[in-house]
Amino acid sequence: MTTPLAAQMAAPNVETLQVRLDALCAIHPLPPKGAQRMALSADDKAGRDLFAGWAKAAGLSLTVDPVGNMYAHLPGTRPDLAPVMSGSHLDTVATGGRYDGALGVVAALAVAEAMAAAPPPRGLVVANFTNEEGARFAPDMLGSLVAVGGLSIADALQITAIDGARLGDALAATRYAGDAPLLSERAPHAFVELHVEQGPVLDEAGLALGAVTGVQGIAWRSISFTGEANHAGATPHRLRRDAGRAAITLAHAALALPERFGPDLLATVGRMALTPDLINVIPEAATMTVDLRHPDAETLNAADDALDAAISAAAEATGCTATSQRLARFDPVVFDQNLVARIETGAAARGLTHRRLISGAGHDAQMLARICPAAMIFAPSIGGISHNPAEDTAPEHIAAAVTVLADTLNALCHEVT
Amino acid sequence: MTTPLAAQMAAPNVETLQVRLDALCAIHPLPPKGAQRMALSADDKAGRDLFAGWAKAAGLSLTVDPVGNMYAHLPGTRPDLAPVMSGSHLDTVATGGRYDGALGVVAALAVAEAMAAAPPPRGLVVANFTNEEGARFAPDMLGSLVAVGGLSIADALQITAIDGARLGDALAATRYAGDAPLLSERAPHAFVELHVEQGPVLDEAGLALGAVTGVQGIAWRSISFTGEANHAGATPHRLRRDAGRAAITLAHAALALPERFGPDLLATVGRMALTPDLINVIPEAATMTVDLRHPDAETLNAADDALDAAISAAAEATGCTATSQRLARFDPVVFDQNLVARIETGAAARGLTHRRLISGAGHDAQMLARICPAAMIFAPSIGGISHNPAEDTAPEHIAAAVTVLADTLNALCHEVT
Repeated sequence: MTTPLAAQMAAPNVETLQVRLDALCAIHPLPPKGAQRMALSADDKAGRDLFAGWAKAAGLSLTVDPVGNMYAHLPGTRPDLAPVMSGSHLDTVATGGRYDGALGVVAALAVAEAMAAAPPPRGLVVANFTNEEGARFAPDMLGSLVAVGGLSIADALQITAIDGARLGDALAATRYAGDAPLLSERAPHAFVELHVEQGPVLDEAGLALGAVTGVQGIAWRSISFTGEANHAGATPHRLRRDAGRAAITLAHAALALPERFGPDLLATVGRMALTPDLINVIPEAATMTVDLRHPDAETLNAADDALDAAISAAAEATGCTATSQRLARFDPVVFDQNLVARIETGAAARGLTHRRLISGAGHDAQMLARICPAAMIFAPSIGGISHNPAEDTAPEHIAAAVTVLADTLNALCHEVT
Repeated sequence: MTTPLAAQMAAPNVETLQVRLDALCAIHPLPPKGAQRMALSADDKAGRDLFAGWAKAAGLSLTVDPVGNMYAHLPGTRPDLAPVMSGSHLDTVATGGRYDGALGVVAALAVAEAMAAAPPPRGLVVANFTNEEGARFAPDMLGSLVAVGGLSIADALQITAIDGARLGDALAATRYAGDAPLLSERAPHAFVELHVEQGPVLDEAGLALGAVTGVQGIAWRSISFTGEANHAGATPHRLRRDAGRAAITLAHAALALPERFGPDLLATVGRMALTPDLINVIPEAATMTVDLRHPDAETLNAADDALDAAISAAAEATGCTATSQRLARFDPVVFDQNLVARIETGAAARGLTHRRLISGAGHDAQMLARICPAAMIFAPSIGGISHNPAEDTAPEHIAAAVTVLADTLNALCHEVT
């Protein structure tokens, strides 16, 4: 597999790309380098407005689908051929970094701009997918999931945010609810997403670029326990129904799952709340989340089953009742092997050190993989820091990754068979 | 020990007492039977206003000290003799019950009103102590602690609430900051507090009344862990500094302390918060509280030392830093044995079933015990439910306990030697 020789194109403008990232961060900056644009918030709307403005200035036409996915279109010379697509997401977690998501959008835009002088046979579509992070609405990758037909528009619009907002209402407030058809009805020729690694593998190995072979599976749960509030000093343990103890017992068991299923199982308890949350009152209620990930579907299922058993055991041991809700459940995804090989070869052609790796995080590309050949390029994250305002990538690694993205997209846009 | 024969007095009006409790609950009712009057809140101020009004209507003079402790005075015929004191607190936890604290205040008021027609030699002072619960400001029993000289006024006024308010500012907003001298400068002849048990011992045994022999020791801590926020799906466990894991590890260890120190050690984790509190972000910070209680000072110290070790171990195991703050630390208290025996004898004289027991909860009486003979009367809590709006006591048990309180205070007020 070699990268097909494609027509020459201008180099994407990496300076402009960084200026655009500065502008996105300036909406709601988080020191030292991060930003917050929670999905469908006023901050996210401001980011969308910037993207729409840049696309318009570049002469690209903009379409928006009913869940707010935005598509900026560079037409090809052969409108009969399905376009190539690239992009990512502009939303962030509450403690978002500079590059997470936004890089993939502005990089694809820079490639489209560079191609515009001499449009290739296939068009290039730059995508910004709604609510990739899942930090405000669950599941994560919601926009791309809807786009590929994995979740109905009606169901998506009814989803409630952690702040109580209904997704449909939040979307309407941004004015980015459109009527463009879903991608499931007009699959791209291929999808390539540039993203920062969000982990330490490339940085630790001192490599410039990663060719992503797939995405590990994800299982998210929200668990609530209900017990009885009582005086912390006057209630013997045998008479307590301590919902806090139930949650702590379960959290402890969830974090111990990697000891049983191996270090490739990632377990995180990111949320925990006790009610009434007073030092001297036995909690009557507790809610918490568990995030489990593994590259292998069978192991992830087994760990998820073990979590189920731990929920029941924690409830039984404390005399509490438990309810468990699945917030997301995605099997591991394997990317298109030809496309992965093409990225690897492209990195080599540019003289860049690189390796194959699996993504620990979920990405829009895994949804696109359901309807077209898809793959990803990773740029190294310094220290592996992610979902943190200190997230960073060396400028030369950004430039190198954008170059490989441009080479790959240019070649794909010239594939006419 | 027998109850000295005292002058006859009218029976306290228990119907009025219940109507007053209705009025206190009506300020901020919590179904089914509870109320919220967090210390020095607008709700607490409204309760203080009711108490002040009732005292004034009864012809009692009101004084207030610099931390807001309120004293309603029934003068005796012998002003040279130190008065007897009774009372409790009108503040509640966020999920407060009907009788917790308020019963002791309105019961003492009812006794003072019943005595007023024929004042005894010693006066009777009805006390409402500030911030007994510790649910808004730590430590608990703050008002009585200051009153007996255990904490300076200046230090108390600087304490910050869980909602960020400075105690001095919150107190000023209630207009209940006065200039009455502290009790440490004018110790009462004796202090007797009526309170609901807040535990299941009397109710399980089917007894009408408890003569409280003392209060178990209390150790409260707030612990914070700091780690590093990172992506839950892309960060291997070996590279995490998970503050949530640190807190969960410590909480699990704290709740296991009774296995090591015996079931008389009560351990509660009432508060827990993770930052940024997102499902897919490894927590960068976690805060939690631990409430430990034991009747024996040495065992409590040993458990508290074990907690210290567990804090260090949790921090070390997770690569986090830990800070620990003592919010309260009170040794077990032994009440005046003559007074305890007098309460027992009084219950027997009224034909009430009763037993001696130790208090699991902290009470203002334990502070008063530092400066005068002190003891407590417990009324049974149905099902042991406390710090819960469902807290309740049978009306006949309330009436019986008020009668024994009246008998005991009447006898003390007639002690002239």
